[in-house]
Amino acid sequence: MTARNPFQPSMLAGLLLACSLSAATAVAASKPDPAKLPSSAEVLAATQAADWRDVNPEDAVLMELPGGPVVIELARAFAPVHAANIVRLAQAGYFDGLAIIRVQDNYVTQWGDAEEDEAKAKAKPKDLAKTPVEFDRPLKGLDFRPLPERDAWAPQVGFVAGWPVGVDPKKGRAWLSHCNSMVGAARGNEPDSSDGSGLYTVIGHAPRALDLNITSVGRVLQGLERLSALPRGSGNLGFYEKAEQRTPISRVRVLADLPEAERLRLQVLRTDTTSWKKWLDSRRYRGGWFVRSPDRVELCSALPPVRTAP
Amino acid sequence: MTARNPFQPSMLAGLLLACSLSAATAVAASKPDPAKLPSSAEVLAATQAADWRDVNPEDAVLMELPGGPVVIELARAFAPVHAANIVRLAQAGYFDGLAIIRVQDNYVTQWGDAEEDEAKAKAKPKDLAKTPVEFDRPLKGLDFRPLPERDAWAPQVGFVAGWPVGVDPKKGRAWLSHCNSMVGAARGNEPDSSDGSGLYTVIGHAPRALDLNITSVGRVLQGLERLSALPRGSGNLGFYEKAEQRTPISRVRVLADLPEAERLRLQVLRTDTTSWKKWLDSRRYRGGWFVRSPDRVELCSALPPVRTAP
Repeated sequence: MTARNPFQPSMLAGLLLACSLSAATAVAASKPDPAKLPSSAEVLAATQAADWRDVNPEDAVLMELPGGPVVIELARAFAPVHAANIVRLAQAGYFDGLAIIRVQDNYVTQWGDAEEDEAKAKAKPKDLAKTPVEFDRPLKGLDFRPLPERDAWAPQVGFVAGWPVGVDPKKGRAWLSHCNSMVGAARGNEPDSSDGSGLYTVIGHAPRALDLNITSVGRVLQGLERLSALPRGSGNLGFYEKAEQRTPISRVRVLADLPEAERLRLQVLRTDTTSWKKWLDSRRYRGGWFVRSPDRVELCSALPPVRTAP
Repeated sequence: MTARNPFQPSMLAGLLLACSLSAATAVAASKPDPAKLPSSAEVLAATQAADWRDVNPEDAVLMELPGGPVVIELARAFAPVHAANIVRLAQAGYFDGLAIIRVQDNYVTQWGDAEEDEAKAKAKPKDLAKTPVEFDRPLKGLDFRPLPERDAWAPQVGFVAGWPVGVDPKKGRAWLSHCNSMVGAARGNEPDSSDGSGLYTVIGHAPRALDLNITSVGRVLQGLERLSALPRGSGNLGFYEKAEQRTPISRVRVLADLPEAERLRLQVLRTDTTSWKKWLDSRRYRGGWFVRSPDRVELCSALPPVRTAP
């Protein structure tokens, strides 16, 4: 590992291997010495089964693309009607044969029915709910774990069961934040015009000006690179101009509806545990490769790790 | 343009076409009515030649990839020795035949000599300068234009001639921020181990924990999608595991060294003008598609527009 091999060993050392193995329990209230803290990898290696939340297979869908699967967890606590609609659409096979229709660099990848305004648009199930605006919800009833750090966008930010959340304490409202990998329901000019049949995910810097303006419905937990590494569209806003440029969706299924062997059993690190606090500290206080510890985390730079259930 | 065509017309309306054409000069000190402000597109359409800064062809390199050109402007004011080295390396043909060696999703794309630690590494010009750490510099001497908004990472942020900058007013220091599209010089564990021969650009959410820890040297002004849409590497940290997965770099040239006809004449919106203030306001105060104006901008969500010189 020499200086002549730029960035590779450095990042490996700085992000994965830098810190001492001996200080796994020392998390100080004041600014700790990064060299005495466990690294992120060490925190994760020391987690117990109870530190992880199982993704409920009834709350997640698997989207099959030519490159492989994409798994999206639905945020029932924040967008219950949209989530139910997406489940209903998947169960009806609505997404099967549709496509990725838009990839705008440093912004979003979007999928759905390219012919939605046309006569040949795909029929939706007749029992789909009329979808209300689900831009935010009451803070009350949520196990909100605030970050102490200030945020550029929201009065307060933190996590609810692993979801990145903005909060207005005065108004008692909470909403999902548009971090990279979050999924939203495309809408037209009418605020309540989304129904879950057109979806997008963030593939660049978090466009948090969208927060509170469109309904976030979930997060890509696996396979995000199958959406973020697609060719950018050359049309307005990154829409593909030719049908053959679109990536086809072979099918979307609710995980619970798949044979047991085909379900991808994913887990998200819980954000109400001591392990979570240690993991955040491992991201705040950096030693090794780092010359200057940032001494802070930022909401969208600290999304909880995801793993396949052991 | 109906609600049944999700997101497309909406974004078009909200981001490009929404606001009145009649209020182009009204920029209020207090919170203005978004409907009375010009849109971003309208602000840009109304700019004069003096609102744009020509990219100096001696301060920019063109990297040719199979997909087309990538243009990187070098930040001489922040990393003069690295910038001079990159120019020297380009003039010596050092990058020609090297490759994109790493693409890590939501993080960075990196290029250089994959064999740097090996005997077959490419020779560098003998007159390359020994490169110091250029993580930050004195604020004094810079035409810093602060944003009034708070930032999650730096005591103060703003722009210097179009560059996104963090500032510590107490220490009188300024540094480039790791926004999407910014370019840095890969280094090993020693802080001064970068020399400009290995470079990376940010392709995801701004990893600003890297600020003040590695030398930023420039920004991709054109062709970023040729770096951000590449297949992600399956090795540690997104390094490609097989040589054939790498994207070859046919050549890197200083724009000034190219025949006049081959130079791409780019311009960056100046950040010391009234047009810039109007453009920021068009991003802060959103009407049309937006239900709730964000009433703020964030450093890495407000990088100055780039255009080809008319």
